[in-house]
Amino acid sequence: MALDTILSSNYAPSEKRSALFSEFQEWLGNRFSQSLALREQHGHTLTWLENQPPEAVAFPHSAEEVARIVKRCNETRVPIIAFGAGTSLEGHLNAPFGGLALDLSHMDKVVRVNADDLDCEVEAGIKRRALNETLRDTGLFFPVDPGADASLGGMAATRASGTCAVRYGTMRENVVNVTAVLANGEIVKTGGRARKSAAGYDLTRLLVGSEGTLGIVTQLTLRLHGLPEAVISAVCPFVDLAGACSATAAAIQLGLGVARIELLDPLQIRISNAYSKLSLAESPTLFVEFHGTPASVREQTDLFDTIAAENGGGPMTSAGDAESRARLWQARHDVYWSQRSFRPGASTLVTDVCVPISNLAACVAETYADIERLGLVAPIVGHVGDGNFHVVPLIVMEDAEEVRRAKNFSERLVERAIAFDGTCTGEHGIGQGKKSYLRAEHGIGVDLMRAIKNSLDPCNILNPGKIF
Amino acid sequence: MALDTILSSNYAPSEKRSALFSEFQEWLGNRFSQSLALREQHGHTLTWLENQPPEAVAFPHSAEEVARIVKRCNETRVPIIAFGAGTSLEGHLNAPFGGLALDLSHMDKVVRVNADDLDCEVEAGIKRRALNETLRDTGLFFPVDPGADASLGGMAATRASGTCAVRYGTMRENVVNVTAVLANGEIVKTGGRARKSAAGYDLTRLLVGSEGTLGIVTQLTLRLHGLPEAVISAVCPFVDLAGACSATAAAIQLGLGVARIELLDPLQIRISNAYSKLSLAESPTLFVEFHGTPASVREQTDLFDTIAAENGGGPMTSAGDAESRARLWQARHDVYWSQRSFRPGASTLVTDVCVPISNLAACVAETYADIERLGLVAPIVGHVGDGNFHVVPLIVMEDAEEVRRAKNFSERLVERAIAFDGTCTGEHGIGQGKKSYLRAEHGIGVDLMRAIKNSLDPCNILNPGKIF
Repeated sequence: MALDTILSSNYAPSEKRSALFSEFQEWLGNRFSQSLALREQHGHTLTWLENQPPEAVAFPHSAEEVARIVKRCNETRVPIIAFGAGTSLEGHLNAPFGGLALDLSHMDKVVRVNADDLDCEVEAGIKRRALNETLRDTGLFFPVDPGADASLGGMAATRASGTCAVRYGTMRENVVNVTAVLANGEIVKTGGRARKSAAGYDLTRLLVGSEGTLGIVTQLTLRLHGLPEAVISAVCPFVDLAGACSATAAAIQLGLGVARIELLDPLQIRISNAYSKLSLAESPTLFVEFHGTPASVREQTDLFDTIAAENGGGPMTSAGDAESRARLWQARHDVYWSQRSFRPGASTLVTDVCVPISNLAACVAETYADIERLGLVAPIVGHVGDGNFHVVPLIVMEDAEEVRRAKNFSERLVERAIAFDGTCTGEHGIGQGKKSYLRAEHGIGVDLMRAIKNSLDPCNILNPGKIF
Repeated sequence: MALDTILSSNYAPSEKRSALFSEFQEWLGNRFSQSLALREQHGHTLTWLENQPPEAVAFPHSAEEVARIVKRCNETRVPIIAFGAGTSLEGHLNAPFGGLALDLSHMDKVVRVNADDLDCEVEAGIKRRALNETLRDTGLFFPVDPGADASLGGMAATRASGTCAVRYGTMRENVVNVTAVLANGEIVKTGGRARKSAAGYDLTRLLVGSEGTLGIVTQLTLRLHGLPEAVISAVCPFVDLAGACSATAAAIQLGLGVARIELLDPLQIRISNAYSKLSLAESPTLFVEFHGTPASVREQTDLFDTIAAENGGGPMTSAGDAESRARLWQARHDVYWSQRSFRPGASTLVTDVCVPISNLAACVAETYADIERLGLVAPIVGHVGDGNFHVVPLIVMEDAEEVRRAKNFSERLVERAIAFDGTCTGEHGIGQGKKSYLRAEHGIGVDLMRAIKNSLDPCNILNPGKIF
């Protein structure tokens, strides 16, 4: 018997599910649907993973509604998958055992901005850009930027980070507390708004990164930061990847305080030139951004120029006004879509390793050699200030041999990153796609995680089939 | 039957304990002891809590030895209390159900300094000052400074912070991973050295702050920071507490990047003057420190001077060289001992609330009124940049009425802090002393914590009677 079937047997048979869905339909009216298009959209994945749609989709309006739905699903043994904006990359939203997608997009209010405390309280369904739009007049912003216009609840659930993490931290550092619905339908708030607390276990950090498997986040308090007085963006090509990595490490070690530092490899530059109609030199290139006072960003830019030159980089191009900065960074901003258009019909196998900064150059070099050896079409884009980089093999899923090579590459990459004291995922999470790597990275730590999961969700109704 | 007795019945009867201790004695020789003096020292508390010594003390030399001891204790049902430097403040080291103190002071090596990655790996028993002494030549330092010369394992276990947290964060932010022995004797490492990871539940943050109840930390990787090029210390008296609090809030809101900002109230200044032979004005006083480049610390000092003046503060005295800085801050450095000498024979009831910075002035004002109303001798010292302050009633334990007033004060203070969206403990932990406040702060979150505790330590041998 297949594992999926064994696990499925824990869940409600189809007639019980149908009865529960009828109950929800009657209660929620047009905020409940079983249309195929909607279901497929809610199971959608942005990588090579196959679509496994849920059986139904509900749109709750409050934590209390979420609690009622979860309680009934728990009693009836129906899986629940929280859905924010659908931008996760590891199949987090798939429904391998069926069940209900809980779409939180209607819960998108900014509940309160506490400007004096540099924090704000938001509902889980609000998206990143909408939040920063709301904050515009306060002089504050929320800095975690994973690229996609993700929901804050989803970003917390996957412990997201992105380009600004090198300066402002990830969701781990920028979530003050969460309100979450537990598997039994109870609502827990994990803490107050004090900047620190030593009162008991850190439930906030336990829920951040738990991928909807321990609770469904319905509200969050987020740390905000003052908008920088001045911003300078810069782009700097390098002779080789080693030089770009060394310059990055030197900037971090010197405490340069860079706000973003992104690497594009020569193939990605070629892809970006084609997609964004640019003419950048096809060299390893760093995209850098500095935040601070006018004097300090100028000082940092000059210092970075020196560091770059010492590592085979230059000439550097920089800009201070918003429009020129956007133009300068266009290749970086368009990376996601450029990759998807470069090899029509291909799927993306998004990798996400992260290593200590001193191991970055060696890890990237070995990885690059592996790409060449395996003959893959696989651009590299990295949040290299954190030691985090994404190699993205573009693969034709119908070509079984190519798929095999790409998966082999991905496995070797993860083993390499772990050998370099790093992680199989810097920011995307485990989901379905990286489950097989969890034990290689955490050993018996996985048993601890499982014990926690079993104690908080004994019927395994919260996003089953993810992480473990 | 008393709760202690009911719980005790879960543990081994005395003849079984004796047999286990004989086994340890034979194995460990002079690294095992049951002498009363040593036992009392290992149960010692630095507050009003009574001493409850363990039955024996062992001094392991490695994680493997810790694992073997824990495994045997788990099999035999004998409690284990990890002991670092004995500087915790909430009775964390007491042995209400007897058992073994595991003194990690022999495990005090710096295993590796990864200067290029700004991190280091240390054994849990190393103390803070020794670590920074070892790091001196690297240009790096470990910034978490709780005042006492605590062990790093203990600091992780209690999620310690202290004076530098306002700039550098607490143990939550500065522990990269831990190696810990679980209740069943298995050894788990919670992660690699990458700056971020999204691989599964955050076991590092779960163990940080778990007060030895989920595992015994034997090794840690710590985040290091570059020694500041320049440091300026300053002292500034204020007309009233409200002004000192408002100036603090303004400095934080403006993103001044202050490295330390400490409040002493008029009574504490009087106590400090007496103890340290000083002649500071008996006013609410802020002790401030700036870290950065020579130009930036000068700029920050000037800006803070302006902020202070706008809030009824001044004249400010500042110093840049180490000796003058130490003299300027002497009152702050001597706070702990000055309080203990001010009222001979008195015990200290150390409180530790923390509130959002915008609520600090109101919370301190209400608290001050309460001290006056209750007629307590209770100085205030605060890490106010975090909204964290300690009121320390000096109480004669023989005076039952005074004890009652002090406890009533403490309860009211905690309720007030929680009402202000804060916490009952900013940095000392729950231990025995604050157990009764955990539910007021966390509600059903306590049930989650208990479920996690039960799943990871089903026999409740790890530091029983603490947190819950």
